[in-house]
Amino acid sequence: MSSLQAVHNIPEICAQLGITDVVLSPGSRCAPLTIAFARHPAITVRTVPDERVAAFIGLGLAQAQRRAVALVCTSGTAGLNYAPAVAEAYFQQIPLVVFTADRPPEWIDQLDGQTIRQADLYGAHAKGTFTFPADTTHPDAHWHAGRIVSEAIGLAEQFPAGPVQVNVPLREPFYPKAGEQLQFQPVKVTRELPGRPQLPAAALQELREAVQTTGRVLVVAGQHPASAELLLAVRQFAAAYQVPVVGDLIANLHLPAAPNFDQRLRPLGRQDVFMAVPEPGLKAALKPELLITFGQSLISKALKLYLRTAKPTQHWHVQPAGAVADTFQSLTKVVRMEPTDFFAALLAEAPRSTTNSIGVSESSDLSSIHSATTTSTPYVTTPNHTAAPDATRVAAAPAPTGPVRLVWPGSGAHLSEAAASAKAAYLKPWLAAENWAEGFLQKFMQQPNQPFNEFTAIYRALQLLPDHTALHLANSMAVRYANILGLPAGRTAEVFANRGTSGIDGCTSTAIGAALAQPDRPVVLLTGDVAFFYDRNAFWHNYPTPNLRVILLNNHAGGIFRLIDGPRQQPELEEFFETRQPLTAENTARDFHLHYHTARTFTELESALPVFFAPESGASLLEITTDSPTNAEFFEQYRAAVKSSFA
Amino acid sequence: MSSLQAVHNIPEICAQLGITDVVLSPGSRCAPLTIAFARHPAITVRTVPDERVAAFIGLGLAQAQRRAVALVCTSGTAGLNYAPAVAEAYFQQIPLVVFTADRPPEWIDQLDGQTIRQADLYGAHAKGTFTFPADTTHPDAHWHAGRIVSEAIGLAEQFPAGPVQVNVPLREPFYPKAGEQLQFQPVKVTRELPGRPQLPAAALQELREAVQTTGRVLVVAGQHPASAELLLAVRQFAAAYQVPVVGDLIANLHLPAAPNFDQRLRPLGRQDVFMAVPEPGLKAALKPELLITFGQSLISKALKLYLRTAKPTQHWHVQPAGAVADTFQSLTKVVRMEPTDFFAALLAEAPRSTTNSIGVSESSDLSSIHSATTTSTPYVTTPNHTAAPDATRVAAAPAPTGPVRLVWPGSGAHLSEAAASAKAAYLKPWLAAENWAEGFLQKFMQQPNQPFNEFTAIYRALQLLPDHTALHLANSMAVRYANILGLPAGRTAEVFANRGTSGIDGCTSTAIGAALAQPDRPVVLLTGDVAFFYDRNAFWHNYPTPNLRVILLNNHAGGIFRLIDGPRQQPELEEFFETRQPLTAENTARDFHLHYHTARTFTELESALPVFFAPESGASLLEITTDSPTNAEFFEQYRAAVKSSFA
Repeated sequence: MSSLQAVHNIPEICAQLGITDVVLSPGSRCAPLTIAFARHPAITVRTVPDERVAAFIGLGLAQAQRRAVALVCTSGTAGLNYAPAVAEAYFQQIPLVVFTADRPPEWIDQLDGQTIRQADLYGAHAKGTFTFPADTTHPDAHWHAGRIVSEAIGLAEQFPAGPVQVNVPLREPFYPKAGEQLQFQPVKVTRELPGRPQLPAAALQELREAVQTTGRVLVVAGQHPASAELLLAVRQFAAAYQVPVVGDLIANLHLPAAPNFDQRLRPLGRQDVFMAVPEPGLKAALKPELLITFGQSLISKALKLYLRTAKPTQHWHVQPAGAVADTFQSLTKVVRMEPTDFFAALLAEAPRSTTNSIGVSESSDLSSIHSATTTSTPYVTTPNHTAAPDATRVAAAPAPTGPVRLVWPGSGAHLSEAAASAKAAYLKPWLAAENWAEGFLQKFMQQPNQPFNEFTAIYRALQLLPDHTALHLANSMAVRYANILGLPAGRTAEVFANRGTSGIDGCTSTAIGAALAQPDRPVVLLTGDVAFFYDRNAFWHNYPTPNLRVILLNNHAGGIFRLIDGPRQQPELEEFFETRQPLTAENTARDFHLHYHTARTFTELESALPVFFAPESGASLLEITTDSPTNAEFFEQYRAAVKSSFA
Repeated sequence: MSSLQAVHNIPEICAQLGITDVVLSPGSRCAPLTIAFARHPAITVRTVPDERVAAFIGLGLAQAQRRAVALVCTSGTAGLNYAPAVAEAYFQQIPLVVFTADRPPEWIDQLDGQTIRQADLYGAHAKGTFTFPADTTHPDAHWHAGRIVSEAIGLAEQFPAGPVQVNVPLREPFYPKAGEQLQFQPVKVTRELPGRPQLPAAALQELREAVQTTGRVLVVAGQHPASAELLLAVRQFAAAYQVPVVGDLIANLHLPAAPNFDQRLRPLGRQDVFMAVPEPGLKAALKPELLITFGQSLISKALKLYLRTAKPTQHWHVQPAGAVADTFQSLTKVVRMEPTDFFAALLAEAPRSTTNSIGVSESSDLSSIHSATTTSTPYVTTPNHTAAPDATRVAAAPAPTGPVRLVWPGSGAHLSEAAASAKAAYLKPWLAAENWAEGFLQKFMQQPNQPFNEFTAIYRALQLLPDHTALHLANSMAVRYANILGLPAGRTAEVFANRGTSGIDGCTSTAIGAALAQPDRPVVLLTGDVAFFYDRNAFWHNYPTPNLRVILLNNHAGGIFRLIDGPRQQPELEEFFETRQPLTAENTARDFHLHYHTARTFTELESALPVFFAPESGASLLEITTDSPTNAEFFEQYRAAVKSSFA
């Protein structure tokens, strides 16, 4: 047996445990890993020279495929360049198995090249770290080597998923003889069979009764991958109990649920708009008594700050395992269940053992989302008035046009008349607020004679977004603008953003990973100039992404700082906050053979968009060039209008 | 007092303790630090958006200025992008004080944006980590805050210098009121007064006697900043004891010592050439009995591997403090002294308390190096034969033309006739080998009818290198080629390379830091295409570097892999090792307003070089485009010639 057999077994174990994709960065120390992965018939290997990029591409692949992706790098600082993506994967709960080649332990700190201290390289941002044995000649060491790889993959994929490091010390010789064949023998692996936690019947009944008897129940969804099963369960729950459900774009609750489901029951998404209305009456009307949350972070700072002020008496967070954040400083219960199971169980008259019994498809297959072509109408119809709801008007708001009613026959909502009426009274201002915000946005964004500005440019681009798009929103302003504006009703775009750490460092690379993972689906990245140029090496590899569309908002600065009162008033604004930068993306597009479109007026934008989005156009970049002060002024007008349409 | 006064004191403490330069990256959380540093009158602040680049620019500034530089970044993954430079600083012993803005502790892990676990962010690659108090209203906390900054700077600068993290939790509000003035009050600081360790007289005498009585004493210098004091001490020691001194380019022993010193006593530097001669007789003749080393890592793998085989009986490493590597597996003594003091003390008849008493300038001012204009002749004159020394010829080698003799009158060398003769016999083959290698190189590199290749292109470029250049050598092939070729005799170039971790990730950024630190000195970067494009964001900032010259060896691949037997024979060579990449630097030069020169033939190269190097040319990039297989073939010819001129 080759002394490298234990290393050659690594891709075999990965393949047996379902890993199909590896991103590696070239190096000498990692050569045995490179060769073993490259030759394994069941693994797709891509090589990306900039490790910071490689790791974010791996993250994008894993995010799209919903399974672990392996990274392979050489010794030294290569692995440190993975650190930003590893941290993002940790907080966004994306499984990555990071193989860092290393010198054997006796040569650490001996002044050899590309040698750092690689044990536990990611500290608090990895779920675990393993050290591959340097010598696998002893049978126990050989078993240990294989066991480690199984364990690492298992750990990475266990909920909450995340990154795991396997440090692999390697001695020379690294290379097989010319023409030598590697052996990929089937090896023993250890498989994780994940269970879904269930609450005891009595505990569930207590929760159910609390929901039934509490008038002001609010559901808020944090970042969550799209899930047909979850969509259905949440909407059924919301309809049955007349509960408002609020979610940012990255909660992916805007997607249509199963095609046979009432598409009007779309959760609310305009909180960035109506939460900015400075009306104490409205704020009081929206205050929850019981807040139920699931998923990860919120984009909407307005909603977050509101809930920290309008503290609910009870806050339950539903999450099957792992540490839980007390985001609103009112967390009282952590419910250890899958959100889907929780919502289904609270609907059921009696505890049920499978979600199937309440009619939700057992499969979490997303094909129904990806292929959905039915046009959904919004939860509430768009009103033709744009005056904001004041306290009086809220109370008198018309009932939503689409009936909000229990659509699940036989569900266990069991509401008393008093409870049902209290719930309806609480739901009403939420629906009215959403309603008002939709109408306000439509009117404001479509007003004539606007100066060319990025906020409106995004609005128009989003109107033409192809269906089934994977929409990637870069930090920092792109994701905020998009969350304010939302998607046109019924647009089936799954939305991603690196909100685990909210960094700008790998947004493009992540989108490229997504484009590589799903070649048949449009992947649209909406990004700003600082994020774009920061991660420009994302394109520096040899793998085509004809399905990629990059919309670049170039205001030649970190424009976000002009939108915040604090820095806007400082003399340091332009040099030290905005960081004026003169680049356009034209040379970058030329370097990487991206079809380059540019828009400096609405007319140019309108004529570029259809070509840009056309499937046959190939990898394309649309640079929307705007002026930072103009953007700030227009956005200020928007903010003023939100407040003043209330006066 | 403003609640941010403790933060505003940070730049004041930095300034009082000698920090003059800060590199910051824009962000919101770090705003109080940004504003405080930007407004402090004694601090030069530069803003660089890509934190990976920012940290390497800081490293380049600190390396050039030989004092700590501060970095400031916002919360989240910003600080993780510093990690590669922090590791390089750790192993290259460069002082960096890294201020990472953070959320206050109660908001960690609460799903807020740009929030990771920043405590001890750099793990084993920082000398220390400090947590600034989140609340400084209590007088003790205020004292603690200031103390931490003093301690951090002191720790970063103590030998061995290195990076230190100060994590600074900050609560809103971040911004002073419009027009508000910050207070920079003089504050108490704690200053480190570094001592220089001395050995007891008896211990020194023992070492001195060992050097005097041992025939085969060899000095090998690792990476070390240029030091006039050290140059003088080493050369006096070498001359007095007839000891060969070997150093790579990055040992900076090739620089002329003080102008009044015998410039012929240049240490040996052609070890990459003569150590590749497969002649057991030569190898036996060069074998040391006592090896004395100082400094950090070696570039020359041939020398390193040789010394691991030809193990000395004794190996002393001279280093005043810190962990010591057993690079050659023969370390027997660690001498806790400054190398300068050690060599001076071993020369002296009796122990001396200051270096001054043996005539070495007390100041380590480098102006004599930077301003030296005398043309030094090499240690040994260039021979006109190019046959390699075989064992017989080594024994019969002519004495070097320049007399190698004690130039320090009254030094304590005290050699017996037998010892002097044994030492001379050991020195002779070293000098002959160097002699031969110089002649061989000259003849080989100047041979007519060469195909255009990067090895010769570098040789020719180095011939025209301006005096007083700071020469930055990128990993991986650039530094190796240059170390083989050496610099033309007497060329006063100080040489730098990121050999702490030998990464390619920040070579350009480091050179840019150097160019910013020394605007009146040419800074020349020699780099390959993978390192260059990897770190392309190095140019993405608004600070001019008219003194920067970048020589880019573009072979459209990581050409090093074609020069190594192992990967060259694998089917994965082109895709997974070389990583073919089609970029030229033309668009990058256009983006960043670098004067762009290109050379695809020797004629183009010869005509480009004088313009390129001319002081008035401004920031320039010379792209030398070669063919990877041709490079490999020519380098193979070189390697064969080294061996066959011996046949």
